[in-house]
Amino acid sequence: MKDFFKVKTIEQALEYTTRFARMETENIALAKSAERVLAADIRSDIDLPEFARSIMDGYAVKGSSTFGASEGNPAYLTVTGTVAMGELPDFSIGSGQAVRISTGGMLPDGADSVVMIEHTAAIDDNTIEVYRSVAPGQNMVAVGEDLKKGERLLADGCRLRPQESGLLAALGRQTVKVYKMPRIGIISTGDEIVPVDTRPGPGQIRDINTYTLSDLVRQSGAVAVAFGIVGDDYDALLATSADALKDCDMVIVSGGSSVGARDFTIDIISAQQDAEILFHGISISPGKPTILARVGEKPFWGLPGHVVSAMIVFSQIVTPFIDHISGLAARENEPFRLTARLSRNLASAQGRVDFVRVRLNRRGDDLWADPVLGKSGLISTMVKADGLIAIGMNTEGLDKGTPVHVIPL
Amino acid sequence: MKDFFKVKTIEQALEYTTRFARMETENIALAKSAERVLAADIRSDIDLPEFARSIMDGYAVKGSSTFGASEGNPAYLTVTGTVAMGELPDFSIGSGQAVRISTGGMLPDGADSVVMIEHTAAIDDNTIEVYRSVAPGQNMVAVGEDLKKGERLLADGCRLRPQESGLLAALGRQTVKVYKMPRIGIISTGDEIVPVDTRPGPGQIRDINTYTLSDLVRQSGAVAVAFGIVGDDYDALLATSADALKDCDMVIVSGGSSVGARDFTIDIISAQQDAEILFHGISISPGKPTILARVGEKPFWGLPGHVVSAMIVFSQIVTPFIDHISGLAARENEPFRLTARLSRNLASAQGRVDFVRVRLNRRGDDLWADPVLGKSGLISTMVKADGLIAIGMNTEGLDKGTPVHVIPL
Repeated sequence: MKDFFKVKTIEQALEYTTRFARMETENIALAKSAERVLAADIRSDIDLPEFARSIMDGYAVKGSSTFGASEGNPAYLTVTGTVAMGELPDFSIGSGQAVRISTGGMLPDGADSVVMIEHTAAIDDNTIEVYRSVAPGQNMVAVGEDLKKGERLLADGCRLRPQESGLLAALGRQTVKVYKMPRIGIISTGDEIVPVDTRPGPGQIRDINTYTLSDLVRQSGAVAVAFGIVGDDYDALLATSADALKDCDMVIVSGGSSVGARDFTIDIISAQQDAEILFHGISISPGKPTILARVGEKPFWGLPGHVVSAMIVFSQIVTPFIDHISGLAARENEPFRLTARLSRNLASAQGRVDFVRVRLNRRGDDLWADPVLGKSGLISTMVKADGLIAIGMNTEGLDKGTPVHVIPL
Repeated sequence: MKDFFKVKTIEQALEYTTRFARMETENIALAKSAERVLAADIRSDIDLPEFARSIMDGYAVKGSSTFGASEGNPAYLTVTGTVAMGELPDFSIGSGQAVRISTGGMLPDGADSVVMIEHTAAIDDNTIEVYRSVAPGQNMVAVGEDLKKGERLLADGCRLRPQESGLLAALGRQTVKVYKMPRIGIISTGDEIVPVDTRPGPGQIRDINTYTLSDLVRQSGAVAVAFGIVGDDYDALLATSADALKDCDMVIVSGGSSVGARDFTIDIISAQQDAEILFHGISISPGKPTILARVGEKPFWGLPGHVVSAMIVFSQIVTPFIDHISGLAARENEPFRLTARLSRNLASAQGRVDFVRVRLNRRGDDLWADPVLGKSGLISTMVKADGLIAIGMNTEGLDKGTPVHVIPL
């Protein structure tokens, strides 16, 4: 229980994110950039489209040639040609004229709108009847209507969704400057932990945290590097920690949730050059005995060994640090969360934030959050859960029916 | 406009999913199984834990030895040993006795609970004072409290989250039976489309759909295989379609949103052996001119060329087909959606479902969905949007303030 004074609130813990530098950048192929974090502002160097473009099949016209047209009183237009797809029309049109055009075709000079084919009828090879008037600009996209030259389109620090990739394609960016993906080293500790391929003897259990934490690392857009299991052996943990710090941008040691093992993690950190413990203990449950240190320029975590505690600390505390070093821009707001109604009373201690696993169920018109109770060592409770709810520091509990925000799991 | 009678509602379109077989299965390493779809029910062949396990640092005791203990009236217990981590205690305890134990340690015979170290004080090397009573079962996990032997834990068709990987690790599953990831071929068509590395000439635009659709395919847990751009050339599209059908489990042709090009896609489908058009047109906007065919046993899509239409059809119509062939179990309910309030009146035509792009903004206590208006060829509108809202078939529009469900983009 030493360093007890270093227990932080979640907000205080997250302030340490800015102590760590963002990753370096690299240029990668656009086709490989899905979900990566952009490392430059993107401005348009073109107007898009660069030409007035039809969005219907029909006839390019001067809108004024159709004014007043109706079923009972059609306008008659002379068809003077056809726009070929992907080509510059080598003709222009005037009043009373029309040219055939397909979706995506370039409007010829003189045309300012497109009449849908459904609102016309061919009288002969060169004449159509038009049954509806079109306004200038109708059924077409004007030059620069999508993107304007010089406009800032994407900001440094945004994660590239499919539409951002599409935008970059439209701009002709074959390569994209992104932040490198951080490599996160994962070490499981404890004399009682055995590998998955081993039949546990009495008092032993299989390594779960390597798998849950590696998958969480991947979900956060980073690279997981598993360093296996290290027993409660100072020299072995020191050596593996040093290897992980050399190879990775962040290291997570899980286990060591006993008092002795926590001291042990502290000793390992203190034995590294240029190391500083930033906090030891966070006022959350489960997950209080969490340690964050800075070793050189890298974050080094001591996470509780219980699988539920480790996952909750990862999702609530570690992920914002990964987001930060990954180059993600700070979210201006809290992420948008689903709201559900709590299906039973929940008690909670003041002075800490309690995270409760919940399963979502629709009953009647309402979405209900049903608490999944169980100790923080039970992986089955996380499998049953759809998400987490937080019960605030200054709250003694929540009443049945209270609307709660659900953090997805 | 031929085959107009085959226009389907969304629900009718989605009924065709079951026409297609699920992927074959494969056994893969647990460490590679993140986000994959499980292809077998998982039952526990063990009790977990297999031994009674402490979840605190302290002393294993018979609870009855502490009954009535308090600060003013402590119980005095004799310390008879220490449980080593990961080992079977080779001693048992009786009334009035205690053994030192760490979190994760195995309770010795005779012990039924654990006193937290914080609630004790050492009197001498062999004696402790205990200030609080513990009930049998307290501060420990009983045999089988997490998982019971024979219990069905995971069902065929579930997507493996980090906690499911952890569960499989706990069971010692080094390999996992999953459905193979479908390979989805993507073909962009249109004489006006040029590759990203080419400067578009007049009337030309760069290929966007290959990038947006490939990224959407990856988001859906499938493998994207891009076949590049094919001009409006029957023989070339026939050859590329045949290549894609040979290599992939599903093929998506985008573009061809003009009437002529749509007929063209139909002709290409009809030219394949054992091909059947399942529908041509869906009552949604944007995205109506969508074609689904069965070629042999494989789905073959004709998607609109406009980038917004193609993305919306992908997310609403194509994704459920990918989910189905990927082996995902049918969702029992609609997915849980964020609710926001519509920030302005929106008109809508009856007889179709309108999908409107929205940007989410928190104003005061409410989350508002601000419509992002713009034509369905404008990629910038998708970049600005956080999600989509649907305006139902039988609705003339939605009033400002109406609660709407938001489909994330």
